[in-house]
Amino acid sequence: MIIIGELINSSRKSVKAAIEAKDADTIRKIASDQAENNAAYIDVNAGTFVENEPEYLAWLVQTAQEAADLPCAIDSPNPKAVEAALKVHKGVAMINSISLEKERYDNLMPLIAGTDLKVVALCMSDEGMPVTVDDRLKIADKLVNDLLKSNIALENIFIDPLVQPVSVDKTYGTGFLDSIEALTEKFKGIHTACGLSNISYGLPGRKQLNRAFMIQAILKGLDGAIINPLDKGMQTAITTAEALVGRDDYCMNYLKAFRAGLFE
Amino acid sequence: MIIIGELINSSRKSVKAAIEAKDADTIRKIASDQAENNAAYIDVNAGTFVENEPEYLAWLVQTAQEAADLPCAIDSPNPKAVEAALKVHKGVAMINSISLEKERYDNLMPLIAGTDLKVVALCMSDEGMPVTVDDRLKIADKLVNDLLKSNIALENIFIDPLVQPVSVDKTYGTGFLDSIEALTEKFKGIHTACGLSNISYGLPGRKQLNRAFMIQAILKGLDGAIINPLDKGMQTAITTAEALVGRDDYCMNYLKAFRAGLFE
Repeated sequence: MIIIGELINSSRKSVKAAIEAKDADTIRKIASDQAENNAAYIDVNAGTFVENEPEYLAWLVQTAQEAADLPCAIDSPNPKAVEAALKVHKGVAMINSISLEKERYDNLMPLIAGTDLKVVALCMSDEGMPVTVDDRLKIADKLVNDLLKSNIALENIFIDPLVQPVSVDKTYGTGFLDSIEALTEKFKGIHTACGLSNISYGLPGRKQLNRAFMIQAILKGLDGAIINPLDKGMQTAITTAEALVGRDDYCMNYLKAFRAGLFE
Repeated sequence: MIIIGELINSSRKSVKAAIEAKDADTIRKIASDQAENNAAYIDVNAGTFVENEPEYLAWLVQTAQEAADLPCAIDSPNPKAVEAALKVHKGVAMINSISLEKERYDNLMPLIAGTDLKVVALCMSDEGMPVTVDDRLKIADKLVNDLLKSNIALENIFIDPLVQPVSVDKTYGTGFLDSIEALTEKFKGIHTACGLSNISYGLPGRKQLNRAFMIQAILKGLDGAIINPLDKGMQTAITTAEALVGRDDYCMNYLKAFRAGLFE
């Protein structure tokens, strides 16, 4: 599982305060904690600072990479912010995220085209959130083909079919899961990624639901996720599910995690 | 989920002792505990008593049904024991289980044919445990068609593709899960059932693995399971997974269980 650590996000109070105070220690600590817990990318988001987003996002990239020897997922639809962040980024960054929404698409595609950047591609258009598997496949088809035409390699694309709350419609869980399976089959070699927590919106016991949904999504082929790497229950769910579906030779990873006391 | 409560089994020390002492209170308590925790069938097994199995199995049926207003799953390959148990059973029992193994098949088929009994049908033959999905489908095909020809209704059959340990071969988990899906699709209206705990044989953290496997099996269509109904973690896994896959209208069951404090 390719884990994108979600914790450096200005929508979190402590992170917002740290950014305002240019408190590098706090940001570095969050970055290194995530790196030590299997993150492959450190997501950085300064979206609540509309005016200063470019400056702050670049600072977050620099600060996070001082503490974690990992690439960042640059989490913004603002091309100025993405550009500023890319300028200081070391290694190959991930862009989080492009979609078929016209403004976002027009802003980000020129920055992405012809690069070896990793790209999260949301199955979203100006017509709103997709509902059925077919809706998602239609958007994905156009978006993935556009990215390929712009010389992004298929294996650098992380397609996100967008999780919607099962409390709103009982088919939303399976709609997402079937989309993961269909996209993985249709575009051989593509990655998938998503935030899962939307599945449990409006229900109690959200952690339990999110973990069970992760266990099901891994069965359907999900291989990337935007999560809190410090959530031991979620990490247990991932390790366990990967062993069960045969993604873990001789259950070595599972046994290592169990013996290291990483399980909740 | 159709839960078959597995706790009245003479391979458990306390149950064996209770049977030997004709301690009806202990058996009644185990039966009513399971009934209060969503069991649909009370499994009864006196298999360790070779000689007295018929007498003891009948006594278990009578005693369990004194305490739980539920049918029993009569768990024996011995036709004399099954016959004795059926003689005293109230309501429509489940037979656990027939298979294509010649001796078991020849012993049990005459007792089952033409009845409205529920039947657990194991994907097992004298050639041993099936390994691939195709192996299972081949056995299932013959077994299900034999049962249908013997006037067992399809909806009374609980087909069990047999779980094997993922520690032995990393494809054994998905082999089982894909079989559940294939059998559910091939025989519309059939039920599936199994004991899950074999999946985690040879690994530590078995409860965690068993629950995650249940969550995946429900996604693939599993609708029956032989479990310990008092295992709150397993019950949480079932309720959560059923809500996620749309088997729980308006998440009512999930909300009810959560509010009743049934979640681990």
